Amino acid sequence: MGSDEKKRMAVPTANILASKQKEISITEFFEKNKQILGFDSKSKSLLMGVKEAVDNALDACEEADILPDVFVRVERLEDDEYRMVIEDNGPGIVKKMMPNVFGRLLYGSRFHALRQSRGQQGIGISATIMFGNISTGKPARVQSKIEGEDSVAWGMDIVIDTKTNRPIVTNEEPFTWEGKGSGTRIEYYTKGRYITGKQSIFEYLKNTAIVNPHAKITFVDPDNKTFVFERATDTMPEKSKEIKPHPEGLEIGELQKMTQSTQQKTVRAFLINDFSRVTARIADEILKETGIKPDRKPSGLSRDDCRDIIKAIGNVKIMAPQTDCLSPIGDTLIKKGLMHVLDGMRPEYYAPPVTRAPKAVNGNPFTVEVGIVYGGDIPAEGQVTILRFANRVPLLYQAGACAITKAVSDVDWRRYGLEQRGGKGVPFGPAIILVHVASTKVFFTSEGKEAIADLPEITEEIGLALKLCGRNLKSHLRKRERREHTRAKFEIVQVILPELAKKTAEFLSKPVPDLDLTISKIMNVVWIEPGVDAKKKLRKITYSVFNYTRSERSFRIHAQLPKEAVNLTLFSDSHFVEMNDEGKVAWDVKDLAPAAHTTISFELTGDMADVFSPDDVYISGINPVIVMGADPLPGDWGIKGIEVTEIDSEEEPVEEEEEEEETQEVLEDD
Amino acid sequence: MGSDEKKRMAVPTANILASKQKEISITEFFEKNKQILGFDSKSKSLLMGVKEAVDNALDACEEADILPDVFVRVERLEDDEYRMVIEDNGPGIVKKMMPNVFGRLLYGSRFHALRQSRGQQGIGISATIMFGNISTGKPARVQSKIEGEDSVAWGMDIVIDTKTNRPIVTNEEPFTWEGKGSGTRIEYYTKGRYITGKQSIFEYLKNTAIVNPHAKITFVDPDNKTFVFERATDTMPEKSKEIKPHPEGLEIGELQKMTQSTQQKTVRAFLINDFSRVTARIADEILKETGIKPDRKPSGLSRDDCRDIIKAIGNVKIMAPQTDCLSPIGDTLIKKGLMHVLDGMRPEYYAPPVTRAPKAVNGNPFTVEVGIVYGGDIPAEGQVTILRFANRVPLLYQAGACAITKAVSDVDWRRYGLEQRGGKGVPFGPAIILVHVASTKVFFTSEGKEAIADLPEITEEIGLALKLCGRNLKSHLRKRERREHTRAKFEIVQVILPELAKKTAEFLSKPVPDLDLTISKIMNVVWIEPGVDAKKKLRKITYSVFNYTRSERSFRIHAQLPKEAVNLTLFSDSHFVEMNDEGKVAWDVKDLAPAAHTTISFELTGDMADVFSPDDVYISGINPVIVMGADPLPGDWGIKGIEVTEIDSEEEPVEEEEEEEETQEVLEDD
Repeated sequence: MGSDEKKRMAVPTANILASKQKEISITEFFEKNKQILGFDSKSKSLLMGVKEAVDNALDACEEADILPDVFVRVERLEDDEYRMVIEDNGPGIVKKMMPNVFGRLLYGSRFHALRQSRGQQGIGISATIMFGNISTGKPARVQSKIEGEDSVAWGMDIVIDTKTNRPIVTNEEPFTWEGKGSGTRIEYYTKGRYITGKQSIFEYLKNTAIVNPHAKITFVDPDNKTFVFERATDTMPEKSKEIKPHPEGLEIGELQKMTQSTQQKTVRAFLINDFSRVTARIADEILKETGIKPDRKPSGLSRDDCRDIIKAIGNVKIMAPQTDCLSPIGDTLIKKGLMHVLDGMRPEYYAPPVTRAPKAVNGNPFTVEVGIVYGGDIPAEGQVTILRFANRVPLLYQAGACAITKAVSDVDWRRYGLEQRGGKGVPFGPAIILVHVASTKVFFTSEGKEAIADLPEITEEIGLALKLCGRNLKSHLRKRERREHTRAKFEIVQVILPELAKKTAEFLSKPVPDLDLTISKIMNVVWIEPGVDAKKKLRKITYSVFNYTRSERSFRIHAQLPKEAVNLTLFSDSHFVEMNDEGKVAWDVKDLAPAAHTTISFELTGDMADVFSPDDVYISGINPVIVMGADPLPGDWGIKGIEVTEIDSEEEPVEEEEEEEETQEVLEDD
Repeated sequence: MGSDEKKRMAVPTANILASKQKEISITEFFEKNKQILGFDSKSKSLLMGVKEAVDNALDACEEADILPDVFVRVERLEDDEYRMVIEDNGPGIVKKMMPNVFGRLLYGSRFHALRQSRGQQGIGISATIMFGNISTGKPARVQSKIEGEDSVAWGMDIVIDTKTNRPIVTNEEPFTWEGKGSGTRIEYYTKGRYITGKQSIFEYLKNTAIVNPHAKITFVDPDNKTFVFERATDTMPEKSKEIKPHPEGLEIGELQKMTQSTQQKTVRAFLINDFSRVTARIADEILKETGIKPDRKPSGLSRDDCRDIIKAIGNVKIMAPQTDCLSPIGDTLIKKGLMHVLDGMRPEYYAPPVTRAPKAVNGNPFTVEVGIVYGGDIPAEGQVTILRFANRVPLLYQAGACAITKAVSDVDWRRYGLEQRGGKGVPFGPAIILVHVASTKVFFTSEGKEAIADLPEITEEIGLALKLCGRNLKSHLRKRERREHTRAKFEIVQVILPELAKKTAEFLSKPVPDLDLTISKIMNVVWIEPGVDAKKKLRKITYSVFNYTRSERSFRIHAQLPKEAVNLTLFSDSHFVEMNDEGKVAWDVKDLAPAAHTTISFELTGDMADVFSPDDVYISGINPVIVMGADPLPGDWGIKGIEVTEIDSEEEPVEEEEEEEETQEVLEDD
């Protein structure tokens, strides 16, 4: 009989265990589980601290409509200790709140708010300060000045008592805030390791600057090198509004709680006022279906009443959540983002970014944006690069855990022109894929906010966005192939026929006939050939247009240019008709004779010049099946096209693209 | 000026924010972040609940030295609501503790204990009950009876107040506990979806039973089908001991806290008694190096004193943590585990499992075990299957986030005979890899305990274990190749020579000469050829031994048999010498004449018969370079080999295995 067993006979194990059972302080819990907060390695810990502080700075500035000006310094001291400084020009934090905001886990202002923001948990910054305390034994110094001339700035040293999860404040004192009107400055010491490369602080700040072009970010690295990411725009992003919970996916427990805490006097008012998208009509439908009297007190509802209401909500048709609570990145920034990563490399093609219409999960609206660049100088050997963003925050770690990676792996990329063994896993090839998930609440896999949890609703939306963007890529690759194929045909006809004619003519000692029309007859195609001539700040695009048909042709050519790159003075071209403010432009080709050709050309300037792919050109006023090098004008195009005038009886269609299948599949999924 | 901005002018944003800043209850936090606890999809939620309850049941039984008998029922009610019942025969829970254990997050007995256990956070089971409450609005029913005739059983309904994280108890009443002496029964309702397959409750229970053979687990599924996983052994696993923290990797903050809370009167006593592996000598060394007086009060130590002690600990040589706080699975169970997964499939080879010597991370001892099966019926197309275990708990989700997956992906498997593009990523091929990490504290990536965090120390150890196991696989593949190669050579010699001889003899009308010796001269090898004849419950292994050398040979053949499968009565064989209790067996071959041959044969029975690979056979008493089909006896072998007697001058070495490089590499890493 083991000693344990003897003990058990004397005192029941239950009592021994009981004596050990006690409360675990949340702070102790995280102290012993650093990795959950992302503080698992020394290099990562440094990044996490900066990330939490910068995310908060940007959130605060946006809430106060202040253009963010953020300063970050990482200073190396002895035996891998660092001094970290993060300063912003935000609205500041009122003195009495500072201790709790910085010195207490699970304390914050955004947790209960249904709107897109970076920080939401009220854990990050206090955790950062806690791990600073633990690893160096030194307090953090926080300083803040709120708006208004009269108010003074306050500074204090903060240590977190990990037994009680409460701040211990020392050296509290007022001081004069230099320079900016208001702001917050955090200075703390921590153990860490400064690294460069893909998962570095620099990379995080760079990517943050890209998707937050309204922010200016200054970074001083341990070697005292200063990097400034300048503000690219002075307009704040559309401010995301706070909304009421959407009834979709509501749990009975949540509903019961709401019925107890509501201010509303009647169930009907409760449904209408405490939820978004619940109109009087919908409320009545719900009540009718449940048979609950509209004027009952919400607090009087039983569990079964609540269960019935949930059921009814499921049956009644309710509008999808509004989207003004979200602030997506947008096509232009997605392209900019991709350009920054390319870092000089010239890709062959930018697939037009895809933004999905918002959906809701557990009442939280979310939307997905995807962009892809392909080919050119992008290395083709390895797996594609995946750039992950959540609420405008770049995600650098835990890729394997992330719904974005899973969604990418679940797409069969072989159908979209990328290599992929068995049609599963991260594909191989010369491509970079950017994915942004924006939501009033991002469901992360852990408090470290490094990876998005694999919620079916979200992963599915990402998958659909990827497929749609993939189809753009595929159709580009098809175009390229088709053009090459026709060009080959061309060269044969243009070489062999004249040879033949010459020989025959010699043989019959007749003059060599002009073959242009014959060639046209054989080709029977209007050929639009793009040409690009890139100088450092200028990019000249030329379209050579050949009429290889037997009749005179008139038609209109359309393209969507990056408006940031357009300078109308560069549109000398006689064919130019008009351009709208989205950068949609039109040129007219008039009475182009058989075998004749003409050219259209214009220039683009600046950063965004690169993102225009000359292949994306459209035509109207002509039967598209005889045109090579341009697609029919989409129905929803901004500038109206012209009508098809002549019908050429002998026109033979150029082989069709077989996209039906995919369209199908995407629609089904949709 | 936007309305927000106007507001700002009136009231500083800081004050507006301040009005919103408030404490977030841990329960609310998890209520809004289900996914962090693993309750992100309906199917997963069902599994999580069972997992938490069963893990606790097994922990409790082991603490009380009770052979676990666990009952699980999943009952489907209407609109995807389920009734879940988990019952055990553990020591029970004392009445006054029941509300907190089940109705309060972050409350438990194992959080502060440094010993291997499944549950540690004090979150799982109460979270399960909370999500049951929220999704169905119904309370959980918990019942428990502690050991001892006199004690009565108590039952109560529990709901968690998510605002306060406190239990609300109703219908508390005593009752008579049927059957077993003590135990705990949990019954709760929850929304969910019951699934089968790789990530199902059945799979979790099956794998749990495999690595916990001392437990009996009964499962009744929603279709009322009953599955019983019978106990495979009546001996409890070696009970893991609780230890003091090991000073390795101690943070200054933790040390400061310990100096405040210790019972010890002097720093010296503090160092010796409050840490493991700190002897009087080590304590003195530390104090000498820091210049701190041994008799100072611990509470009097300054931050700098603590910093110096930490530094000194780094410089003083301290023994690695003891390992009796760990309870690894062991070779046999690893093989059993793999067999269960194989589920009838016959693999070609079981690589001998590898168990690493324990290391410590942040003062927590841990060890890694790895097993691999290869070939045979295992499908070869897809990626290899990876089985992940942590502290004897199977991990079914979040593979992509797990250090185990990362470690597997980081090994260049091309060197060990598996396919892998670019030497990175999960390899492809007919293999199943099992990895178990046992630790006094498993660092999970989230409270859901689904994936092990990528701590460098741990990932590296897993990698080393994988490489060592991989080398076993590789050397098996090499052996196979070499044997096939030599066999080919053989067949040629044995066919062509006689033909030649016959023809010549005819031609010279002479009798055909006996060529055996000639062939021997050409081959110059002792050939050991395994044969397997498997009947349902019996597996007959035969070694045919040919002496294709020019001299008489005597030597000893050794093998390691799975002792569970050995039945000595089956060792009729005249060559048999002895077998030790590990199943290491020896046979003697005496005076085997040139060109003569003999056979050794024996039979294995039962489950484990399968795990013996006949290729793993060793020889002593003969120069190994002339032996084909057996390796030289390892130095540390249990049964002693015999000395090499004769030296054959003309022996030509069979080509050497080129394993040096790998040995090197593993050693370097090591």
